[in-house]
Amino acid sequence: MTEMDKHIRDSFARQTMMQTFGAEIAQVSEGNVVITAPILPGSRQQHGIAHAALTFAIGDTAAGYAALTKMPSDQEVLTGEIKINLLAPAKGDLLRATGKVIKAGRRLVVVTAEVHAISDGKETLVAILQGTMIPVPT
Amino acid sequence: MTEMDKHIRDSFARQTMMQTFGAEIAQVSEGNVVITAPILPGSRQQHGIAHAALTFAIGDTAAGYAALTKMPSDQEVLTGEIKINLLAPAKGDLLRATGKVIKAGRRLVVVTAEVHAISDGKETLVAILQGTMIPVPT
Amino acid sequence: MTEMDKHIRDSFARQTMMQTFGAEIAQVSEGNVVITAPILPGSRQQHGIAHAALTFAIGDTAAGYAALTKMPSDQEVLTGEIKINLLAPAKGDLLRATGKVIKAGRRLVVVTAEVHAISDGKETLVAILQGTMIPVPT
Amino acid sequence: MTEMDKHIRDSFARQTMMQTFGAEIAQVSEGNVVITAPILPGSRQQHGIAHAALTFAIGDTAAGYAALTKMPSDQEVLTGEIKINLLAPAKGDLLRATGKVIKAGRRLVVVTAEVHAISDGKETLVAILQGTMIPVPT
Repeated sequence: MTEMDKHIRDSFARQTMMQTFGAEIAQVSEGNVVITAPILPGSRQQHGIAHAALTFAIGDTAAGYAALTKMPSDQEVLTGEIKINLLAPAKGDLLRATGKVIKAGRRLVVVTAEVHAISDGKETLVAILQGTMIPVPT
Repeated sequence: MTEMDKHIRDSFARQTMMQTFGAEIAQVSEGNVVITAPILPGSRQQHGIAHAALTFAIGDTAAGYAALTKMPSDQEVLTGEIKINLLAPAKGDLLRATGKVIKAGRRLVVVTAEVHAISDGKETLVAILQGTMIPVPT
Repeated sequence: MTEMDKHIRDSFARQTMMQTFGAEIAQVSEGNVVITAPILPGSRQQHGIAHAALTFAIGDTAAGYAALTKMPSDQEVLTGEIKINLLAPAKGDLLRATGKVIKAGRRLVVVTAEVHAISDGKETLVAILQGTMIPVPT
Repeated sequence: MTEMDKHIRDSFARQTMMQTFGAEIAQVSEGNVVITAPILPGSRQQHGIAHAALTFAIGDTAAGYAALTKMPSDQEVLTGEIKINLLAPAKGDLLRATGKVIKAGRRLVVVTAEVHAISDGKETLVAILQGTMIPVPT
């Protein structure tokens, strides 16, 4: 495990929300982070599919950690703003969010994320996000 | 309880995500819905304050139900898109989201929401949201 | 004219885009700026109403100068990001954008704006904007 | 020229704002439209670079026509909402916006766009956009 990988996994492990959702970091590389989460019984909206807050949560978190891969190890990131467009119902076994850095500035990092729902091996793009992460000292 | 009130509370009760967060509907009136949620131990990010997903969840849900107050009772709403700007750390005892309808069209309902953190009776505006809800038949 | 007023009007006068649109600063107070623009023959989309870019331009600019009223006079602001929801066709004699500061931080200023179309004295809300302005040294 | 191409170019020619900006359609294919515009003397902000409204205008328009390539010929599209993140100063000879359809639904079309500034043959990504187009009968 690289130092960057460890930095991100340590931070992720302290996010109790991610544990509540059963979310896991699936992949870390420079500028890209993948997070997966099952659609737990307690993560649903009124029609039994994943609540938009779950889709948002892993999309935002994947984008935030993607930004963190570009920061020195004495920095953290906070979400400044982020927008989500929901494309299709998030139903299936699992959601997978892929966060990506578009532009890493000194003061702001612009990011995007895609969220797919995976059902019986079939993938559907269910949301796209576009936002700004703010580097802060740890 | 009015019929609108009942329609909204029934729908809310079926959202298991709201139960996971301990969220409650505090107020319903035409074009406005208020939702509160404690910052549970399982709803935090790596610094121990509320995860942005909690702030998002209740902001989005308050905005969505505000839209629903403008719909006939055989309609539901889905979030089409929504953007959140985070203004201050969401720390304290409780979060309170106030959703509001800006324009209710036949095909789309444009909404906003404000989220406050409440700590020892002091309120801080922690986020604003702006989005689009889509009416769908139940 | 106050110093703040002068600072803003000088900056505005250097924006050739505002002259192209025939836009004017109608009002400046701390945290609030109002800009108006006629719907010129050259500012239209394919149906003859105001192009979304005109609505965006004056909304974004009103929000940016609202942010500038909160800055020391050796600072300028740049738009970091902004989102517009269009609510109704922008038709009439004049558009009027009202920009407002929601939270002025040291590093970022969160703003909103409303744009109204004015036709025979009747006002219609045609767009709302929510965004982030970034202070930079002049 | 295909029928789709003609449909788009006819609509574009009726947008006087695009003429004001000197904008041109550079490319049309299913789900993708490219628009270019010079940075005219009348399209600038207070520092002499392209006004955010120009970047927005061609990004929004490229995204809108990309959506139109997915519609039957008796439909038009309106921008429902769109968000822009500005990444770098838009300076140079020319801006080029590339609009793309992410998901074409019957009621809504989700789109993105990238805007590059081109200076002496060097390209810089200056903005990304994410939004929703609404099909309407012509």
